[in-house]
Amino acid sequence: MVASAVASSSMSHLRFLHSYTFPRFESGQVQLKVAATAKVVMYQMIPPSSSAAPLIPTTVDVNLGDRSYPVYIGTGLLDHPHLLQRHIKGKGVLVVTNTKVAPLYLDKVIHALIVGNPNVSVESIILPDGEQYKNMDTLMKVYDKAIESHLDRHCTFVALGGGVMGDICGYAAASFPHGVNFIQIPTTVMAQADSSVGGKTGVNHRLGKNLIGTIYQPQSVLIDTDTLNTLPEREFASGFAEIIKCGLVADAEFFAWQERNMDALMARYPDALAYAIKRSCEIKAEIVCQDEMESGLRAILNLGHTFGHAIETSCGYGEWLHGEAVAVGTLIAVDMSYRLGWIDNSVVERANKIIKQAKLPTRPPANMTAEMFKSAMAVRMKLKIEMHGCIKGDYDRKALDETLHAFCKSLNQVFSFVLSVCNGRSFVVQ
Amino acid sequence: MVASAVASSSMSHLRFLHSYTFPRFESGQVQLKVAATAKVVMYQMIPPSSSAAPLIPTTVDVNLGDRSYPVYIGTGLLDHPHLLQRHIKGKGVLVVTNTKVAPLYLDKVIHALIVGNPNVSVESIILPDGEQYKNMDTLMKVYDKAIESHLDRHCTFVALGGGVMGDICGYAAASFPHGVNFIQIPTTVMAQADSSVGGKTGVNHRLGKNLIGTIYQPQSVLIDTDTLNTLPEREFASGFAEIIKCGLVADAEFFAWQERNMDALMARYPDALAYAIKRSCEIKAEIVCQDEMESGLRAILNLGHTFGHAIETSCGYGEWLHGEAVAVGTLIAVDMSYRLGWIDNSVVERANKIIKQAKLPTRPPANMTAEMFKSAMAVRMKLKIEMHGCIKGDYDRKALDETLHAFCKSLNQVFSFVLSVCNGRSFVVQ
Repeated sequence: MVASAVASSSMSHLRFLHSYTFPRFESGQVQLKVAATAKVVMYQMIPPSSSAAPLIPTTVDVNLGDRSYPVYIGTGLLDHPHLLQRHIKGKGVLVVTNTKVAPLYLDKVIHALIVGNPNVSVESIILPDGEQYKNMDTLMKVYDKAIESHLDRHCTFVALGGGVMGDICGYAAASFPHGVNFIQIPTTVMAQADSSVGGKTGVNHRLGKNLIGTIYQPQSVLIDTDTLNTLPEREFASGFAEIIKCGLVADAEFFAWQERNMDALMARYPDALAYAIKRSCEIKAEIVCQDEMESGLRAILNLGHTFGHAIETSCGYGEWLHGEAVAVGTLIAVDMSYRLGWIDNSVVERANKIIKQAKLPTRPPANMTAEMFKSAMAVRMKLKIEMHGCIKGDYDRKALDETLHAFCKSLNQVFSFVLSVCNGRSFVVQ
Repeated sequence: MVASAVASSSMSHLRFLHSYTFPRFESGQVQLKVAATAKVVMYQMIPPSSSAAPLIPTTVDVNLGDRSYPVYIGTGLLDHPHLLQRHIKGKGVLVVTNTKVAPLYLDKVIHALIVGNPNVSVESIILPDGEQYKNMDTLMKVYDKAIESHLDRHCTFVALGGGVMGDICGYAAASFPHGVNFIQIPTTVMAQADSSVGGKTGVNHRLGKNLIGTIYQPQSVLIDTDTLNTLPEREFASGFAEIIKCGLVADAEFFAWQERNMDALMARYPDALAYAIKRSCEIKAEIVCQDEMESGLRAILNLGHTFGHAIETSCGYGEWLHGEAVAVGTLIAVDMSYRLGWIDNSVVERANKIIKQAKLPTRPPANMTAEMFKSAMAVRMKLKIEMHGCIKGDYDRKALDETLHAFCKSLNQVFSFVLSVCNGRSFVVQ
């Protein structure tokens, strides 16, 4: 189990990350002094904080040889068409978005794609919104649209929206015949700080989340932080589960910075938000550059996801937001790490406190039993890796049981025939 | 259009391939003298022809950096478990096969996987047979089986069968979470000489063949030519469309060798078969090594496939075998190349003759019109590439019309409301 960047006694396995100097926002003043110790992540400075859109965005480079790409971060970036247009390949573009995001940003994105660029023709598809639609049926709609639009292999797919849009559009781009060009325009904290970087794409299987997919890197990621202004409160908070996780597993100082600045972040203070997103992208980029295919190190980014995916799968996709489930999953993982003696109690307390500060849940769904967790986790393959990849020891079934029972009712405590139900689905347990 | 390796006047674009010395089988004597001019394809000699299984198989290496893999070719290779076992990763193996192949070879393959290898556990899934099942529904069955078998990302998928099995299993391996290990055991001429090498995987879309997929290289390819002994006549002949294509586009001497030896090949003379398969694999490997992602050169391997896919899509997948459609598609492409002045009439005549010798069809389905071809080709993206990638000039709509009308009835010549029907499906044309 992980949650160890903040546990000084467990820092030895974190040698892969360098220490960073980074800004504090307590005073409201931006200090963009960033240590140049990160070997694989480079960035350019944004100009002093201003309401005008920057001409030179902050850029995090994901260095993966011939699959390298820039992550542009800043306010008003969608007002700078060249940032998008320079990454278009071919004449045809398909924008993949959803019913929530389309009314807000689709016209703006289409304008940015075509202004001064008459050779490009843009099609779009507007999908239903929510994790429950991240499946094969929705994916087929993207293929249908691409084929009906006579797009060929020399075209560009653009994902506009949150993590679900990025995952579906990216997977379609990877598999529309043998791979087309792909650009991410994430519009949620979750997607900007986490899912748009690193190339994981895919859809859910009814038996487990993200079980169908591939790693396919985009050509670029354009993060216009202004798009967070329209994000509903719950979706906004959800993304912080991944930001907190980044600090917890990889950068103790970043975690401490979050503890000091969580109120500013929740108040959507722009520079604090931009920094939190940039630092999360840097951490993720550095890890992905060392282990793109998740053969080892990258698995630390799964902290909380084994338990979190169990919640999402058991509740029915979409009932709990991904970040909400990851938040609880992180606390379960931290609890179990404590029971195994890998971290001390202060880490447990700090993790609980910051999750609450971020307005995220700290307990699983009330009707979810330890047995439901174990059943859902049985079809996943992450548990072992998450445990082994981050802490050298093997995991302990007893500690798992104790942890789950501390968070859940046991099967005996609930009505035992039909356990019901987060969203109307029933789970029959023998 | 292509078909030019055999047209001496058009040899200039074939500089990428070296000339080879190769055996002749007229005398029935095997001469395995092979020139060492191929830079990216290396092979080892098999011992003098023998009924005993060779200990050292002929090996064609596909050199793609960290995605390199060997193609083992020989008789009785399934009796040498180490050839399979050395490429297994993880403890779980899923064999993906179909109802025709399973009764013949599944037990043998499972034995080869587990004998002396007690740590490995093998699951299998037996899918329906035929191109009409190469779709998302069948693919989902593979995911279901993998998940229900609790396979994790450290497992191996084995494709056992023809091209459809390789395409489905390979695509499942590429996308079962983010990619697992993959071994090809092709059992048809089509799969052994063509589809098992190069990494193209995928499924069909109702609007076009192979429109969903990715390029995902296997860990190894094991070609046991003994499996061809059980191949029905029609499937056997079908594979020769790709072998003929290889000679036609890339190796004039290999094409001439086929002309001299087609009767021996049709009689399933083992050494002739082994040579034809090996030479086809070498040619494909050399081209794939230069252009894995089909950004240019690899498109020459699509000769006949634009027209061929139109036949398969229009008739309903499975009605015509892939090789049968490619055979006719090749002749259409050759005809059009002649009309464009790119090749002389002798190539047209030789192509027609060898396709007939291989017991393959030379005309499209009787009810298929020029308009049906053009409609089916409109949703494909290969036409332009196939034309441009191989011959420098642009293609000519007039030549296309003339060619299609030479091969098909025009719309006016057929009953014009419901065109009917290869396999009971109707095509309504306005």
